[in-house]
Amino acid sequence: MTKKLGFGHGVVGILGGGQLARMLALAAAEYGIECVIYSDSDEVPAKNYASKFIHADYGDLDALKKLSDLVDVITYEFENIPLETVQFLEKLQQNSDVSVYPSSYALNKSQDRLFEKQLFTSLDLPVAPYQQVDDIESLHSAIDKIGLPSILKTRRMGYDGKGQVGINHRDDAKQALDLINYSPAILEKRIPFDVEFSVIASRALDSSIEIWPITQNEHKNHILAISQVPAPEVSALVSEKAKLAAEKVLKQLDYVGVFALEFFGVADSEHGFVINEMAPRVHNSGHWTQDASNISQFHQHIRAICGLPLVQPKLIANCQMVNLIGEDILHLDPYYKQVDAHIHLYGKKQIKVGRKMGHVNILSQQN
Amino acid sequence: MTKKLGFGHGVVGILGGGQLARMLALAAAEYGIECVIYSDSDEVPAKNYASKFIHADYGDLDALKKLSDLVDVITYEFENIPLETVQFLEKLQQNSDVSVYPSSYALNKSQDRLFEKQLFTSLDLPVAPYQQVDDIESLHSAIDKIGLPSILKTRRMGYDGKGQVGINHRDDAKQALDLINYSPAILEKRIPFDVEFSVIASRALDSSIEIWPITQNEHKNHILAISQVPAPEVSALVSEKAKLAAEKVLKQLDYVGVFALEFFGVADSEHGFVINEMAPRVHNSGHWTQDASNISQFHQHIRAICGLPLVQPKLIANCQMVNLIGEDILHLDPYYKQVDAHIHLYGKKQIKVGRKMGHVNILSQQN
Repeated sequence: MTKKLGFGHGVVGILGGGQLARMLALAAAEYGIECVIYSDSDEVPAKNYASKFIHADYGDLDALKKLSDLVDVITYEFENIPLETVQFLEKLQQNSDVSVYPSSYALNKSQDRLFEKQLFTSLDLPVAPYQQVDDIESLHSAIDKIGLPSILKTRRMGYDGKGQVGINHRDDAKQALDLINYSPAILEKRIPFDVEFSVIASRALDSSIEIWPITQNEHKNHILAISQVPAPEVSALVSEKAKLAAEKVLKQLDYVGVFALEFFGVADSEHGFVINEMAPRVHNSGHWTQDASNISQFHQHIRAICGLPLVQPKLIANCQMVNLIGEDILHLDPYYKQVDAHIHLYGKKQIKVGRKMGHVNILSQQN
Repeated sequence: MTKKLGFGHGVVGILGGGQLARMLALAAAEYGIECVIYSDSDEVPAKNYASKFIHADYGDLDALKKLSDLVDVITYEFENIPLETVQFLEKLQQNSDVSVYPSSYALNKSQDRLFEKQLFTSLDLPVAPYQQVDDIESLHSAIDKIGLPSILKTRRMGYDGKGQVGINHRDDAKQALDLINYSPAILEKRIPFDVEFSVIASRALDSSIEIWPITQNEHKNHILAISQVPAPEVSALVSEKAKLAAEKVLKQLDYVGVFALEFFGVADSEHGFVINEMAPRVHNSGHWTQDASNISQFHQHIRAICGLPLVQPKLIANCQMVNLIGEDILHLDPYYKQVDAHIHLYGKKQIKVGRKMGHVNILSQQN
């Protein structure tokens, strides 16, 4: 084991083996850095792009210890791994020089919608009105305070619209709680927004921060469908404010790595937006950086967690990123021969409704 | 086994596991296509980027049969694998639908400098004056015909200047033959050239051809040091003629895949150049296509051998490709933070003099 990280040497451990881990591993390879992939599932997109693949539960302490012994730094590709897993790896760190980035502190805030909202609020960043909900009484009281329509969201394990139920009438309250199995939740005011956008940002061990241009996003069935950069409907002023918000959060979390902050743009509001949520990882809405930026989010994340200097991002073309969801992957014909279409597939054998199978970055000349 | 090739499915077998195989495997991954790497060496750069790694001699027929059973198409990353290996795999093809590209016919012409020269000459393409050399008598007679200074080159197994001896005086003839162990050879007139350049071209199963802009090359100690595109010292007329020469060769070979043709530019000559040699594979002087073209040579090769449509190459930035040879890899500081420098390392553990460890593509605005 080298126990030395740098261009051309070192081993990164990644918890999770999906497409984000796969693209991180491919980027690491270009820097001459190996990856060990750790996943609780055996057939995963990143499996074949690792110097070693560990198939074990996220709670398997022996397997986690083994991972830690094999690598120089550990990261993760999704925020729904158990907090205890990352905390355990951080404890191991006290007896070794294997770091874990992002930290369990950042992960904890990201995993829980209540903590996340409290964090944003503590930094004077605008969020939609919300209330903590633990039972039918607190839900009724939340409805009184916030009003309807609102959305009941589980505090934990939500992504791509999972764990969310809209409430339009007071009478729907009980059914909504049933649907989320009475999990700890928040009630959030439904905000009529004009546009969705995200900030993909990165922070290095030396505290330097680099942020890509704002990405405008369009979701279908709660799953990202299209990202566009530059964002056609986000003003320069709002973009700047959003970037400053991302910087504030990164600093407060003492964050290391790539990070995404998602916004609802609301023209008729004080800040021009409310923050929706954050993701402590590379993000689907940052996939355009692979082809339309001088530095991809995957390369930048590898740099950040390996203690290497970040690169200042630059847009090299306008880009539309189109997600290939489910059977979209069977209809690649429009992209095959298009000189400006860059196809990225994840090697998933089985097509499922709603499953992210790949994406296409379509470039066009900069304005 | 899928036995079906396309975006998102299929398995490519690659003979050889060096950096070219590694970069092919990374490109294939982006298209959702797996690779099986076959190498006679166990520690190779491509090993960790394959769904399976076969460590066996190139003459091991059982292992080759196994490779053929695992994949949908087979290619190779260097021209010095035994011709018999590719011929054996082609024979297997008669009982399966596993194709081998480029063909053994193209490989045979590329492996032997005499065959190569004869091919170019048969197509009316200019080469430096040459003579076949088998012994001291034919060498003396070759010197009489061609004159000095000349270069004695082994017909087979030459690359990066290996198997070449300069002859300046008639008296050096015997020593030169000693140095190449009396291997079958050619004597080639030393041509005082003005510039070196190469054409990277691709040909698909449907016979369509796509060619990148001409690359100007600079060698140090017979190893490529720097490639530049656009080529500053190659005229538009010479570029066009060079591309036409590449097309002629590709057609004659019924070639499938990416291919490189190397030239000496000679201003004072009928064609403006003589052809030096060809390589039936992706080529070091095409590495700039990873970052400065809409399609990299690695992606294009995967497309070609998988029967997918080629993309018309387009220059998206000017580029200087700098090879990192031996200890160059310890001095990456100038490139770390440069916003336009794209670092590509091959994951080779051991630094050796003359070993290609990586390269950097440095982009600049197009004129």
